[in-house]
Amino acid sequence: MTEYQTPKGMRDFSGREMERRLAMMRKIETVYRAWGYQALSTPAMESVDTLNAKAGANLAAGSEIAGQLFRIEDSGLALRFDLTVPLARFAANQSLPKPYKRYCIAPVWRREEPQKGRMREFLQADADVIGCPSMRAEAELLAMASGALRAIGLGAFTIHLSNRKILSGIVEKLGLGKAEVDVFRALDKLDKIGVDGVEAELEEAGIKKASVSKLLELIGDDAGVGNKERLEKAGEYSPHGAEELRQIIASLHDDYGMHGDEVKIDLSLVRGLGYYTGPIFEIRAGGGVGSVSGGGRYDHLLELYGQTDSAVGISLGIERLNALEEEREKDGGAVTPTQVLVVELDSSLHKNALEAADKLRAAGISVETDLNERNMRKQLEYANSLGIPFALIIGKKEAESGKFSLKDLRSGRQETLGLTEAGMAIKEALAQK
Amino acid sequence: MTEYQTPKGMRDFSGREMERRLAMMRKIETVYRAWGYQALSTPAMESVDTLNAKAGANLAAGSEIAGQLFRIEDSGLALRFDLTVPLARFAANQSLPKPYKRYCIAPVWRREEPQKGRMREFLQADADVIGCPSMRAEAELLAMASGALRAIGLGAFTIHLSNRKILSGIVEKLGLGKAEVDVFRALDKLDKIGVDGVEAELEEAGIKKASVSKLLELIGDDAGVGNKERLEKAGEYSPHGAEELRQIIASLHDDYGMHGDEVKIDLSLVRGLGYYTGPIFEIRAGGGVGSVSGGGRYDHLLELYGQTDSAVGISLGIERLNALEEEREKDGGAVTPTQVLVVELDSSLHKNALEAADKLRAAGISVETDLNERNMRKQLEYANSLGIPFALIIGKKEAESGKFSLKDLRSGRQETLGLTEAGMAIKEALAQK
Repeated sequence: MTEYQTPKGMRDFSGREMERRLAMMRKIETVYRAWGYQALSTPAMESVDTLNAKAGANLAAGSEIAGQLFRIEDSGLALRFDLTVPLARFAANQSLPKPYKRYCIAPVWRREEPQKGRMREFLQADADVIGCPSMRAEAELLAMASGALRAIGLGAFTIHLSNRKILSGIVEKLGLGKAEVDVFRALDKLDKIGVDGVEAELEEAGIKKASVSKLLELIGDDAGVGNKERLEKAGEYSPHGAEELRQIIASLHDDYGMHGDEVKIDLSLVRGLGYYTGPIFEIRAGGGVGSVSGGGRYDHLLELYGQTDSAVGISLGIERLNALEEEREKDGGAVTPTQVLVVELDSSLHKNALEAADKLRAAGISVETDLNERNMRKQLEYANSLGIPFALIIGKKEAESGKFSLKDLRSGRQETLGLTEAGMAIKEALAQK
Repeated sequence: MTEYQTPKGMRDFSGREMERRLAMMRKIETVYRAWGYQALSTPAMESVDTLNAKAGANLAAGSEIAGQLFRIEDSGLALRFDLTVPLARFAANQSLPKPYKRYCIAPVWRREEPQKGRMREFLQADADVIGCPSMRAEAELLAMASGALRAIGLGAFTIHLSNRKILSGIVEKLGLGKAEVDVFRALDKLDKIGVDGVEAELEEAGIKKASVSKLLELIGDDAGVGNKERLEKAGEYSPHGAEELRQIIASLHDDYGMHGDEVKIDLSLVRGLGYYTGPIFEIRAGGGVGSVSGGGRYDHLLELYGQTDSAVGISLGIERLNALEEEREKDGGAVTPTQVLVVELDSSLHKNALEAADKLRAAGISVETDLNERNMRKQLEYANSLGIPFALIIGKKEAESGKFSLKDLRSGRQETLGLTEAGMAIKEALAQK
């Protein structure tokens, strides 16, 4: 009976895969909390009005998103499609001490065609600062996100920085102001459809080939040109936008000790058609993996919900990061939290097994005992099937002497130890791993 | 503009309240994992067919639940109303090493009229064992849940135990077998509507007053009668059901060291109209608080999804437990994870502040620095508004000497310390708290 399946574009996560996801979420959360970000939990659903408020304000992303809502029957509700709109709705209804710094690691839902690496239910790990107009917020979020990426063991990555003000300045100067949405939409696909694709799309939208060429030249990535030159060029189109980027880079370098090649001005960055108004950024992993994090300043979003605070946010893509780690680890990693199975040689020793388990748990070790009254071979088979690294074997003699056989199921090595020593040996061996 | 609200019966959680919820969830999770339960994450949605499979098998809960679904438009999907059905659907489609022990701490959604203490979105913390026919599973789940309740600081509580087999035996013996669903439904309301209410409801269903009286007498709680006598009585109606309870109690007493008055046979327990087939249980907190946890064996549920494994589960009611803790703590508890605000006396010292923050974070302390370039008074006001316990104050002199003023914002006490000493002082003070 396989008629009962998970919904299209959604998945179960269990065993090794789930342990890996959980470990990643906890590491990111630990970093966010170490920087003083508060947890916020909002309902999975919002009113469609709340979700559509973005669209109402002529932010071009709206129409696209409206088509991707999972709407609830006869309720005027739909599942959230990101974690930013609920935050804006929440913050606008509160009088919070500012800056309000919050994180949220939770699923969002989008009813679009599932593709490799794009699910209909997926996790985001967002951190946002509300009520900080200065670039300190951008610098902190980028430094913190970099710390989180290092904590989960991501190798080399680069921060790509741009500013919507600069992009708008360029578009304006080229006389394309009225076509800004078309231009942003086309540029946003640069990675996917290439220069030729962008040219074709913009010409179709009635923009002259010469303007398109000039546009692509201006945002292009001239090899050998450093951030300093890029900022100077950008300053011609938006002095304010360039100055903001200069401040962010200076802080990342001087205050947070990043190297020159870890931060890169990249004027081709668009970050979708969303609600960004100032600096925008992406963190890209090496080896052609692409973006694992993105964000920016969205100073007008809260206005839609009735408050004028400025806001900046960053989001880590848990799904992409997990896919990366899965590739790196292959068959590694634990299926279960269990670190030791207490094996009883005989049902009459169940009580002794439970006592041993209790003591090992008190020492912070994750322990299972046999529930199914199986013989030793079956118990060890079970431990192996889950990749449980240790077995503590209790026979009559062991129960009487208080000395147990601790078996390392990976190496096969076996030692006779008291319970306290066995606990220490397990912890030591697992810490080395 | 307060037009954008949370959906009816749903809430935001932030600040102190969210910190408390998070701490509770983590403590429960830590205990579940210490017993070797694996995390499982399933989609928020399931197909309506999956959710209704329970109803199809003439399990009486079905019809009630079908009316409480949050259905997704044009999709055949709805949000899950518990964590058990998704588990059953998952486990039936896998070949997992048995016993499969999983936990899940996640929200569920029910479209019913919100009441005090009953929301439309609420958290459950479930642990289940699939593929263990013996009562060891029940005993382990009850011992583990008790451990989790102790870990979150719940005071006295009592485990109430019954068995559907006994209840069915009684109903059968009284000749009420055909009215079992009516009987269970009425008895399940005993706490709410009292003996008179149950009598009235059953008489309305056409059951004779004499039978109702006999029924209530049989399941009634005779003061002064111990578990032993209750088991003997129960054995007359279902020897097998009584023997199962005897085994569970013996294990809780002998193997897990519980006291006699912590476990109580309570034949009035029904546990809803759900899918239970054997032992059922509830954990009730003292002081009239009532049930904080419930569960039981549901040996036929997996069959509906195509597998014959037996299953037992327990669920902790996070919402009820939080309400309890909220009452106990009143205004206590932290609003933010931040343990120290590094106060810079002047913007030029920002870099020094960030360096100090970095070092304190490396020592495992949660730190904020000023994002908004405020003067000292404003920075300290901000710290106080969030209840941040410490401020580390950096002026020019401090930056040069490497000695900082560490101010305890609760006592007002101030010390001059090196950074390492300051970190140790903070950790020590917070550990004592």
